[in-house]
Amino acid sequence: MTGSPGTLYLVPNTLDFGSAGSVTPIQDLMPLGVIRVAAALGHWISENAKTTRAFLKRVDAVIPLAEPIQSIRIVELPRPPKGGHGKAVTIDGPRLLAPALEGRDLGLQSEAGLPGVADPGSEVVEAAHAMGIRVQPLPGASSLLLALAASGHNGQSFAFVGYLPSDPTARSVRIKELEALSRRHAQTQLMIETPYRNDALLSALLAHLQPSTRVSVSCGLTCPGAFTRSGSVGDWRKRLTRLPADVPAVFSLLSS
Amino acid sequence: MTGSPGTLYLVPNTLDFGSAGSVTPIQDLMPLGVIRVAAALGHWISENAKTTRAFLKRVDAVIPLAEPIQSIRIVELPRPPKGGHGKAVTIDGPRLLAPALEGRDLGLQSEAGLPGVADPGSEVVEAAHAMGIRVQPLPGASSLLLALAASGHNGQSFAFVGYLPSDPTARSVRIKELEALSRRHAQTQLMIETPYRNDALLSALLAHLQPSTRVSVSCGLTCPGAFTRSGSVGDWRKRLTRLPADVPAVFSLLSS
Repeated sequence: MTGSPGTLYLVPNTLDFGSAGSVTPIQDLMPLGVIRVAAALGHWISENAKTTRAFLKRVDAVIPLAEPIQSIRIVELPRPPKGGHGKAVTIDGPRLLAPALEGRDLGLQSEAGLPGVADPGSEVVEAAHAMGIRVQPLPGASSLLLALAASGHNGQSFAFVGYLPSDPTARSVRIKELEALSRRHAQTQLMIETPYRNDALLSALLAHLQPSTRVSVSCGLTCPGAFTRSGSVGDWRKRLTRLPADVPAVFSLLSS
Repeated sequence: MTGSPGTLYLVPNTLDFGSAGSVTPIQDLMPLGVIRVAAALGHWISENAKTTRAFLKRVDAVIPLAEPIQSIRIVELPRPPKGGHGKAVTIDGPRLLAPALEGRDLGLQSEAGLPGVADPGSEVVEAAHAMGIRVQPLPGASSLLLALAASGHNGQSFAFVGYLPSDPTARSVRIKELEALSRRHAQTQLMIETPYRNDALLSALLAHLQPSTRVSVSCGLTCPGAFTRSGSVGDWRKRLTRLPADVPAVFSLLSS
């Protein structure tokens, strides 16, 4: 290494990746300061190179990229094994982070929201710290915390537990376990699901939780048509809401 | 009520409230879409009216406010009891939310980050849902999740546990409890502290955690001078970092 290493910027992505052909200008969804840093980066590590290329095109419409998009180097993160939601992947840190070791700034980005939060990327950040590379997160939204704020549930104590098991029996056990944890620690429990299973998860929550437990669902936050519904399980049972099967949702429960 | 109710917008605040006299233009820190909505609101519920007024002046410099700042109505949330960090407060929902019931849009804002997340506000959101008022969170950053992303710790499973007890004995018990939870559930544990106690919390973590447990501290994220340091307790003990006593920090631990 000659000179000091570059910085690893954690570059948030917009939350509208699910809405094909979104036309919202990126400066409406993301601070100019973030767009400016992104426009200057020539090296990226990305969950999905196609997504980052689409992101860079939206950036370029606001602040011209420092170099032509064709010459920007985007290296993809290894994919987790199929069905391996949330499982760690093994990365080749020195290879991925080589540009930073050579003194160049590097962007890390996932499909939506913050890299490494309910998304791949944390292994790269861990490797960067171990290699003495400065890590700088840029301000951006996470659907998890927007959903938490919109739920009205306890935001002073909460946990994100990822995906629930898809097997119905294991799922019902897990739901009751999360309800007990929530009650014992006054802790909001947040979870996500693959969009086509949104309705199945909601049905399971309503079937297995106590009537007084509160459930909130946020769908497609920051996108047109976004909504949040919060209420007791008893209320939900009286008036069901069908969830879209093609939009990411965040589920939250709170038992007291 | 005549006609349909207004919307309760959850308006993020910048994370630089601690840095007096920040001169960063607000569009560098916050999406234009959020600034535009904020500029149009004539009614606010705020953790601190002075902070929201300062925020609106920064907004006005980018998009002129729809009405003079003097005529914008800002109602403050009741303060939690002294030492009552993170405790729920009792609110008068119908009074606070009256403008929305009369058909006007309303903003909810806290001192920094997202309202209701590690900050007051969730009681207002809960009341809004109960009263049939639409709740719409606007995209903004939370220091908790920026710190989580920057830690390199597990972002697929994490909990925010708020403040630790300030009594040394109770605090050491809690630290060991969080370490055990983290190990059992592979769950990152996030916590915050009043800035003047940053160093005391770090010392306690380093004194009571196992050498292999990983600790990360993020200070002043999105502000000039921001930094994140992550490493094992053993590494931290070998090379201590003194934390600023006037800048908010987020602490994170992960035991495996």
